[in-house]
Amino acid sequence: MSKLIPNAPHDTRSHEVLAELEYGKLTSNDYLYVSKHPVGEALPEPIDDEPQYIIYIATYVNYLILIIIGHIRDAFGKIFKPQDYKDLVEENGYAPWYDGFENFYVRRLKLRIDDCFARPIHGAPGRYIKCFDRVRADKNGEYTYTGTSTECLNLSSYNYLGFAQSQGVCTDYALNTTDAYGTSGCSARSITGSTDLHRQCEEVIAGFVGKEASIIVSQGYGTNANLFASLVDSKCLVISDELNHASIRFGVRMSGAVVKVFKHNDMDALERLLKQQISQGQPKSHRPWKKIIIAVEGLYSMEGNMCNLPKLVELKYKYKCYLFVDEAHSIGALGPSGRGICDYFSVPPSDIDLLMGTLTKSFGATGGYIAADKQIIDKLRLNYLSNSYSESVPPPVLAQIISSLRVIEGSLNPGEGQERLQRIAFNSRYLRLGLKKLGFIVYGADDSPVIPLLLFLPAKMPVVSRILYDMKIAVVIVGYPATPLTSSRVRLCVSSALTKEDLDYVLEKFSYIGDLAFLKYSSGIAGGCKVPGEAPRWAIEDVIATNVEDSKKPKLP
Amino acid sequence: MSKLIPNAPHDTRSHEVLAELEYGKLTSNDYLYVSKHPVGEALPEPIDDEPQYIIYIATYVNYLILIIIGHIRDAFGKIFKPQDYKDLVEENGYAPWYDGFENFYVRRLKLRIDDCFARPIHGAPGRYIKCFDRVRADKNGEYTYTGTSTECLNLSSYNYLGFAQSQGVCTDYALNTTDAYGTSGCSARSITGSTDLHRQCEEVIAGFVGKEASIIVSQGYGTNANLFASLVDSKCLVISDELNHASIRFGVRMSGAVVKVFKHNDMDALERLLKQQISQGQPKSHRPWKKIIIAVEGLYSMEGNMCNLPKLVELKYKYKCYLFVDEAHSIGALGPSGRGICDYFSVPPSDIDLLMGTLTKSFGATGGYIAADKQIIDKLRLNYLSNSYSESVPPPVLAQIISSLRVIEGSLNPGEGQERLQRIAFNSRYLRLGLKKLGFIVYGADDSPVIPLLLFLPAKMPVVSRILYDMKIAVVIVGYPATPLTSSRVRLCVSSALTKEDLDYVLEKFSYIGDLAFLKYSSGIAGGCKVPGEAPRWAIEDVIATNVEDSKKPKLP
Repeated sequence: MSKLIPNAPHDTRSHEVLAELEYGKLTSNDYLYVSKHPVGEALPEPIDDEPQYIIYIATYVNYLILIIIGHIRDAFGKIFKPQDYKDLVEENGYAPWYDGFENFYVRRLKLRIDDCFARPIHGAPGRYIKCFDRVRADKNGEYTYTGTSTECLNLSSYNYLGFAQSQGVCTDYALNTTDAYGTSGCSARSITGSTDLHRQCEEVIAGFVGKEASIIVSQGYGTNANLFASLVDSKCLVISDELNHASIRFGVRMSGAVVKVFKHNDMDALERLLKQQISQGQPKSHRPWKKIIIAVEGLYSMEGNMCNLPKLVELKYKYKCYLFVDEAHSIGALGPSGRGICDYFSVPPSDIDLLMGTLTKSFGATGGYIAADKQIIDKLRLNYLSNSYSESVPPPVLAQIISSLRVIEGSLNPGEGQERLQRIAFNSRYLRLGLKKLGFIVYGADDSPVIPLLLFLPAKMPVVSRILYDMKIAVVIVGYPATPLTSSRVRLCVSSALTKEDLDYVLEKFSYIGDLAFLKYSSGIAGGCKVPGEAPRWAIEDVIATNVEDSKKPKLP
Repeated sequence: MSKLIPNAPHDTRSHEVLAELEYGKLTSNDYLYVSKHPVGEALPEPIDDEPQYIIYIATYVNYLILIIIGHIRDAFGKIFKPQDYKDLVEENGYAPWYDGFENFYVRRLKLRIDDCFARPIHGAPGRYIKCFDRVRADKNGEYTYTGTSTECLNLSSYNYLGFAQSQGVCTDYALNTTDAYGTSGCSARSITGSTDLHRQCEEVIAGFVGKEASIIVSQGYGTNANLFASLVDSKCLVISDELNHASIRFGVRMSGAVVKVFKHNDMDALERLLKQQISQGQPKSHRPWKKIIIAVEGLYSMEGNMCNLPKLVELKYKYKCYLFVDEAHSIGALGPSGRGICDYFSVPPSDIDLLMGTLTKSFGATGGYIAADKQIIDKLRLNYLSNSYSESVPPPVLAQIISSLRVIEGSLNPGEGQERLQRIAFNSRYLRLGLKKLGFIVYGADDSPVIPLLLFLPAKMPVVSRILYDMKIAVVIVGYPATPLTSSRVRLCVSSALTKEDLDYVLEKFSYIGDLAFLKYSSGIAGGCKVPGEAPRWAIEDVIATNVEDSKKPKLP
């Protein structure tokens, strides 16, 4: 028992067993699917089902009780246990590092369910993930680690195509590259940190996404956060979806450009905003905007829905704006050939000015890229903060990116890439439909590999997290402030590494928990009904019996 | 011949030869030194020598001619060759991506000397660096690559302790770790991206720098750029050295805190500013500042001088401020045990509130860290953007950090760490004193491994860069806007991987170039004189004959 995260226990199992635990073998060719949006068809509005009103009231009451109790305990605590509050008050003229609601929220709310979050792991986060076991002796105190770990079925990592492996062709590439290049460029790209591997990597990425050129950055967050300062200034307008990732929002704020936000995925609101802003022009001077950039994401990772790309391209041309699409979660994970949101909607990549993506997710590497016309990338090579001031991407990571992209394209291990792509498409639809049939409210598009399953009440977060952990299923639990106050959720990230049988196990266990913790809120308006108009509450056996066939129908029933 | 960076040519030399090219063997125990600032002694003011006034005038004339010619060519060019300016003007209602002075500067000034910058390399950037040969057929046009590369003595990478190797114990660690963990955590630290390796790495770093805890980030730039938003808000004041790195400046601006800048390293100016700001308080309301943070760097990478740490600590306690020190270039590279600026000045690390450093430089890895009291690090684990939103540090990089730190501490390959530390200390002083004796103006502190050698005139940048490349010496050439307009320079980064004989070769070649291009500007006021009061212009033989002894004197003569 130690207060520190222990070292990884030694694993004596054979290579074959370990490989299977990182990436499960396909059990039948039936469990494959090619997902693609029918060309010309309008994007269906995702239907977000709502629970009964009492659930919302209970959620607010839930928070209220916690907050009241917290304040009472603080009031008495400050009198009777001042040593516990030492770090929170001014001392010797120095202001405390923590302040106000920030520390209250953490101490009185998050701490109670802290074991839902950030559990340390070891090994590659593949089909299974090895989570360190931890206990808290005094309920809300520090963790102690037993030294053991639990191997859980992994629906928590962004391992869409299953490349988070420590065996296989990509790892071999990474090893060989480390042998030749070491682990660091010891410099920024703009000084002496550019190698032939960086060029190869940028070429492969540009070719894959269908743009003239690309530039890679050592940090995914930094790819966006430093981008906009190179492209826009205070005379420019950035129109941003309200649910855009923090990196985009910080990047735009940093640039000094004017930002206007439109309601998530609401194309009418976007068009109104465009009309209004173009007619008004810059604030005070009312001169025309120098540039207008519309910034959206391909696949929203908290909602599991996609942007309406065909409509965005139409508006972009109509109002002569530039279009920026963040493909962090969609590249590799969507489209018949894994080329992301453009591939999925059959939109030519030339219609999008700036395609951004991260390499941490589908490709099992780290960092991010921007792909665009050569003249834009050339400009970024000059004045992109992430290029001038940050270290170059480490060689083993480059090898992972290059080799995983070649696998997807089919030039390395032909057939493997196609299998990975078709497995994630099938797995995503299979799990989503299964959960709907069982009666859960899930958000997002049919083909999204991110499946948010709604819990609403904060008290359900620890219940679900703890039971799932006992059942050896790893998921991500998300609550306020990462979601709105009333929509705490479980986020399931589907992976090609999972087999159909793994998903059946997940469905079975969720069915049990759903009954136990009263999570089957669905009214049926979002689909999954057995009898039309009736709330879906299928028995697990019926789900498994029908789900392969149903999930391969063009429209999920 | 190709327009693309070619693939690395195959290298058939033996492992022993390659190892020696990455890290030269120590040729004599005489070439070791332990550098440490004498406790209690005031920090000597670095004397920045000035060239004759005519040099400054020539520099301005130099720029003026380039700018005038550029504008004339642009004026005619826009009329007679409009297709060349297509990307720079509005087209079909779309604003150009490039604008104003930005594109003028690049086209008319930078492009002429573009071959000084960002030359692509392959292999590990160790004692030698393999640079791809490139030519420009039409002078200022695109590069074509011949497919060959030139092995240059490497004074261009931030490879202070020589850990940029693809052989040796650190690479073995990196390979084994990749074998067990793959190349990615596929998640952020705050979700499922924390492994036992991250804990080990943070523990080793905290122990090394002498703080309670530390947190690591996947990008060095992002370590600073996202830090301040977690610690300060608009009611706080950040007092920043005028030469602080871009990452600190952007990070502070991002946080919304009030920023005041003091003259580089001027402790009197800092104290005046502190008094004034504390007496005035927050703008408008004049309420006391919530927090005041003084932000400085340990070793300034463009100037080669250090902050006055003893005085800063004194001021910090006197005015009850927090002190932040960026050790990007000093950690590993300074102090008898490589523990950075605190070690060098014998200041206990507890006197500094926030110690930041990067792992790309001395440790041959990538990313950065913040080390501080446990309560501050705990807070960062909650709301640090780099922790919440960016991918976790890749496993092979963690292995490189952990193993290189263990080598430095002496728990891995005992003796090797000490040798590396004492070699960089000797090499830095040896090269610096040698250059001074030859008559060059170099900036910075005696013990700094960064040696900026001043060229002043922009036209000297390409001269020096091209001749040095022919002589197989790789350096970094820096000019405006990275330096003030009149102080273009060569930056030499010393490494433990270099032997004394390598440095003699460098001195010999610089002596030749110095005469050829009239670079020996020194007046002698900054040291290196043969006869006191006379400008130093030693013959190279005399320098080599006396330099080992002289450079080991407590004060460089």
